Amino acid sequence: MRATKVHFASSDSADMYYMVQCRIPDPFFVIDSGREKKVFLNVLEIDAFRERNTNDTFEVIPVEPLMKKAKAIDGKGSRAAKLAYVIFEQYDLLKKEITVPREFPLDVADYLRSKGAVLNVSHPFIHERATKTAEEIELLRENLKKTTKGFELVEKILRAAKIKDDSLFHDGKELTSEYIKDEVEKSLFLEGMEDVEGMILSSGKQSAMPHHKGEGSIKPNTAIICDIFFRDRKNRYFGDMTRTYVKGTPTEKVRQMHETVKNSQDAAFAAIRPGALAKHVFEASAKAIRDAGFDVGDKGYIHSLGHGLGLELHEAPNAGPNSEDVLEVGNVITIEPGLYYPEWGGVRIEDVIVVGEHGVENLTNYHREYLIT
Amino acid sequence: MRATKVHFASSDSADMYYMVQCRIPDPFFVIDSGREKKVFLNVLEIDAFRERNTNDTFEVIPVEPLMKKAKAIDGKGSRAAKLAYVIFEQYDLLKKEITVPREFPLDVADYLRSKGAVLNVSHPFIHERATKTAEEIELLRENLKKTTKGFELVEKILRAAKIKDDSLFHDGKELTSEYIKDEVEKSLFLEGMEDVEGMILSSGKQSAMPHHKGEGSIKPNTAIICDIFFRDRKNRYFGDMTRTYVKGTPTEKVRQMHETVKNSQDAAFAAIRPGALAKHVFEASAKAIRDAGFDVGDKGYIHSLGHGLGLELHEAPNAGPNSEDVLEVGNVITIEPGLYYPEWGGVRIEDVIVVGEHGVENLTNYHREYLIT
Repeated sequence: MRATKVHFASSDSADMYYMVQCRIPDPFFVIDSGREKKVFLNVLEIDAFRERNTNDTFEVIPVEPLMKKAKAIDGKGSRAAKLAYVIFEQYDLLKKEITVPREFPLDVADYLRSKGAVLNVSHPFIHERATKTAEEIELLRENLKKTTKGFELVEKILRAAKIKDDSLFHDGKELTSEYIKDEVEKSLFLEGMEDVEGMILSSGKQSAMPHHKGEGSIKPNTAIICDIFFRDRKNRYFGDMTRTYVKGTPTEKVRQMHETVKNSQDAAFAAIRPGALAKHVFEASAKAIRDAGFDVGDKGYIHSLGHGLGLELHEAPNAGPNSEDVLEVGNVITIEPGLYYPEWGGVRIEDVIVVGEHGVENLTNYHREYLIT
Repeated sequence: MRATKVHFASSDSADMYYMVQCRIPDPFFVIDSGREKKVFLNVLEIDAFRERNTNDTFEVIPVEPLMKKAKAIDGKGSRAAKLAYVIFEQYDLLKKEITVPREFPLDVADYLRSKGAVLNVSHPFIHERATKTAEEIELLRENLKKTTKGFELVEKILRAAKIKDDSLFHDGKELTSEYIKDEVEKSLFLEGMEDVEGMILSSGKQSAMPHHKGEGSIKPNTAIICDIFFRDRKNRYFGDMTRTYVKGTPTEKVRQMHETVKNSQDAAFAAIRPGALAKHVFEASAKAIRDAGFDVGDKGYIHSLGHGLGLELHEAPNAGPNSEDVLEVGNVITIEPGLYYPEWGGVRIEDVIVVGEHGVENLTNYHREYLIT
């Protein structure tokens, strides 16, 4: 029998949102014993929740009477901790092994354990989230389609820009990372997407720092990395996609790096199949890098190949060099090899794929051409 | 001497963002011993962090060498847990009492404790966050000024709308909650605000459920609750504000409720001073409700008076009936009494105030007129 799961969080938690499929702003308890699920809500939420969850997956339990009992408990302990204890007593959870997520509040865990509860941490908490349903895959495909509109816009701006000395000019003004990011954010906002993590548009030396968001004037004849990872405001799933451009003439190094990263991505695509170890797919992408004479590890290809994508920007499975994850049909992961050298700049190309019965289905479907003249 | 604080989270955690003042997407460790702060970052983040934090508050420590040691540790335990242990060993934290936030990952806490660490949970983790600096107050004032533009827009749409039978019409179409929310979201987006939690625009029966987001056609001659709690995309602080309107002719009950809620809010304003117990301020707001013949508790005024506002929508101090918080100069809190009856509808009015030396400073400064003809 599966262990009973208990979670306490608001629906900002991806696990919680996945379970209740609606947004609830304040933390609440859920008990999931496999066959039945109980959700404990206050009067502010209960009617709205019932309106949205018409499929009776959940037994909805008003939390106020339990809260009254919790308030009557003497001694130290937060309100949430005492409430948790009342719930554990009432629903016989003190004698069972309970699985909680790693973000289960530590003070609540401490209190429950002091009363005899046995809490085991499981990460990931909801394994099913790593294998997407057909419906989830359609949402992700839709989000990625919207995301590509951001790239079309970036290319349009870069194409229209004029090179003057060491700068780009657009509409008579010096073209900056901030300007392009603003334009993309506004444009994708109208498509229903929000930039919750801060997109990357970096050039020159900044492009060699993979997490540099990019700022100031955009440099011609250098690598320009554009990484857009917006979330759909309605369906809450992310998109994630990267292209690298050069406006003007690339250096020979950047040309080679771009070619190599493209080959590395193709090698990863070819290595993906159900049952494959994620780290072997990473290794395939790394081999293409090394074969071209570039580095893997402390310099060059310094990050992992990719990560699961869904309600969180980074979720299971992980496709890094040390991952023990085994790919399964329905996994949705980013495939994003990159090369970074302070002296030459950075190149990254990122698509999102689904692991299918017979290999890869690419949800991104967008060209990888990098030269913009 | 203050206990050493340790945190492990991404900058999505408000505490973490408050400490590092920049956005870092993946979880990282911080040690704060009061006099000195250490931040442990990977190569992807380190340069970008140094560029932004030029004031040397932090010693920046590359995490990769520690990660290598962590990987060499045998036995069960997540990567983060083993890394935490390596850091605790290296920086002599195993022999000290350490304070962690309640969202410190439970698996990491369990692992550290199994190695002898003493971890105490403190909530709130950073008490200073509850008393805002002059700079933070200016950000919040600015955000609220932007938020009021949303209300101006709502009023403009409602004024322009025509009543026909039981519906409102605007630009020839039936006016819906969704339409107004979309317009407000787009308009405030251009002001730099994002709707991370989902604004409320509810009318008729929906207005009687305080957390109902509102959907479908907007009902004339009923209470229309508009609650806008957007976050500024750059400064990361929230705004939060509510007004209740009636388009057309209010019922006598709604008229009384609106008058009463306004008086309740005024009573709360008058009761606020440094040193006051937050629950006594709640009680002042509740007395005004009871004096007018309405209910407090299970029906009527069913929620708390308000909450601290800052990097989180709900933070310390709490102004509910059971709060033990004592108001201090610099607290920024919402003052939002409300009345809710399924048969009559709901009314809520919400401003944001700062607790000053001599009482309240209202950061909202917006009219409370509710009739729109």
